[in-house]
Amino acid sequence: MKCKRCRQAEAAVELPSHHAAFCPDCFFVFFRRQVTEGIRKLRLLAPEDRVLVCVSGGKDSLVLWDVLIDGGYETEGLYIDLGIDGYSDRSKEKVLAYAASRGKTPIVVELAKEGIPIPEAARCVRMQECSICGTVKRYFFNRVAAEGKFTVVATGHNLDDETARLLGNLLHWQRGHLARQHPLLPGEEGGLVRKVKPLWRVSEVETAAYGFLKGIDYVTEECPMSEDATSLVYKEALSRIEDRMPGTRIVFYQGFLDPSNPLRKVPEDAAADAARAAEIDAGEGAGAPQTCAACGAPTYAETCSFCRLKERVRNARSLRAARGSR
Amino acid sequence: MKCKRCRQAEAAVELPSHHAAFCPDCFFVFFRRQVTEGIRKLRLLAPEDRVLVCVSGGKDSLVLWDVLIDGGYETEGLYIDLGIDGYSDRSKEKVLAYAASRGKTPIVVELAKEGIPIPEAARCVRMQECSICGTVKRYFFNRVAAEGKFTVVATGHNLDDETARLLGNLLHWQRGHLARQHPLLPGEEGGLVRKVKPLWRVSEVETAAYGFLKGIDYVTEECPMSEDATSLVYKEALSRIEDRMPGTRIVFYQGFLDPSNPLRKVPEDAAADAARAAEIDAGEGAGAPQTCAACGAPTYAETCSFCRLKERVRNARSLRAARGSR
Repeated sequence: MKCKRCRQAEAAVELPSHHAAFCPDCFFVFFRRQVTEGIRKLRLLAPEDRVLVCVSGGKDSLVLWDVLIDGGYETEGLYIDLGIDGYSDRSKEKVLAYAASRGKTPIVVELAKEGIPIPEAARCVRMQECSICGTVKRYFFNRVAAEGKFTVVATGHNLDDETARLLGNLLHWQRGHLARQHPLLPGEEGGLVRKVKPLWRVSEVETAAYGFLKGIDYVTEECPMSEDATSLVYKEALSRIEDRMPGTRIVFYQGFLDPSNPLRKVPEDAAADAARAAEIDAGEGAGAPQTCAACGAPTYAETCSFCRLKERVRNARSLRAARGSR
Repeated sequence: MKCKRCRQAEAAVELPSHHAAFCPDCFFVFFRRQVTEGIRKLRLLAPEDRVLVCVSGGKDSLVLWDVLIDGGYETEGLYIDLGIDGYSDRSKEKVLAYAASRGKTPIVVELAKEGIPIPEAARCVRMQECSICGTVKRYFFNRVAAEGKFTVVATGHNLDDETARLLGNLLHWQRGHLARQHPLLPGEEGGLVRKVKPLWRVSEVETAAYGFLKGIDYVTEECPMSEDATSLVYKEALSRIEDRMPGTRIVFYQGFLDPSNPLRKVPEDAAADAARAAEIDAGEGAGAPQTCAACGAPTYAETCSFCRLKERVRNARSLRAARGSR
């Protein structure tokens, strides 16, 4: 099959949701346009932004960094070493190798050194691994952005990620989560940096194809701690629908983002407010945050959720040490 | 495993979404309670109602009829013979056999005699089979209900059917469809009968188990014309989620039905209104209907969608006859 754009080279990527098939060069053009369009439509980035790109070593975040560098944005990479045996080392290696190929050195945060490696934290605290990881990452996004004077933090969430999350929020009618789910989370005075997801219009398959054709080497294994993540169940369900009805995902997500969609409003009744408060505490805020009594980070409680998490890990450690010495 | 209710008999039905397992007798009690609760919560039926139960010969509608008879409701069955080779005969046989076992004779409408058998109509008209079938069925629901002085029409849609439809409506943000999707469609003056779905709280598996354990003989084959129906894709996707997270479906549907859900309001902007008008024309109305110039049935257009459909089939037939005689 010939490329539907240049009509000369052999097509390498078939995209049923766009009724298209592209050769590598034309696919690069297409993919970058999709990302640019996603940035423009929702005003995610301005040319003068200093962008902190969160890179995990997986395809999405490395492709995001690649596209933003090629797009002329001023970027630095942030790698958070979660302290997961083997997986974290392999991921870091990919990040360093990619960064070097673009003449960059990423900022590295090691959770083991920060006293809160994810596997230990998960053993100490009765919380889902992915939920702990989210809290910790959000904390460092804000901290590193403030330290490095970045104006915005970009993550590699793609259309599959966003629609899986949307489906989960709809299945349980999480009104607070629904109202705040968006590729753009505005920043707040006091240390909450703006967060954007420039890949929201491109699918996982498209991102993987871009990474592969550009020769970007990334970790292909899923995080070993997220194997049971419910998001994977939603993602798989949507994949089956997309396979049968190409284009469903983008229609679903764009229809959700439409400002006339009533789910975009935070519900006003008291019960919903309580749910909302609980979520805000988890770190994705609305309204002006306070300052954490322990570390000075923005928070909606007395101490920030990161400091409370760290405190609980510390306590569990002391308890174990005390038991061991008896 | 012992029944979790009587703790004596062996369990025959396991229900992960209710953390329960029942022996046949206790399952009957459970199932009837679920249906009764679904009727009570949404005030679907009153004791004085005369209920026209639409029976297709499949498990859902025969189980519905069974539960309503046992619940003391005054019921009659309506079988619409779609004129589908083999399938329609086999379905009718099951309906007649079940009805006879309860001392009943169903009302039978034969679409072939009415000049609009589904397979021929589908060949003549550029419309999906399931869509034609829906239009025709709605027409006869209203007509037979009016002729027989029934106060309400009941169909066998279960929780799986309703959530599959809900998912489809959400994936495409069909605001008009979403606002009107409900187990209770109120009647309208002028011949639109109230329509209810008393099985909305019970799943397909539960309904099948009820039918099987009660010895109700039903057609197990899917309608041969609905094989490509998108609703089956949504149903399968939700089944995979339900398998991994039992109870998701009922949470999803109940959260949707909650009156505080903003999607329950018909959107007010013009574009949405146009979409709404198009849907209303298809037969599920809001506001007072007019009278069809051809047959006197309720409609929102000059002639009802059934008469227009019949007209198109008639025209196609004449055209074919004229071509044949040349």
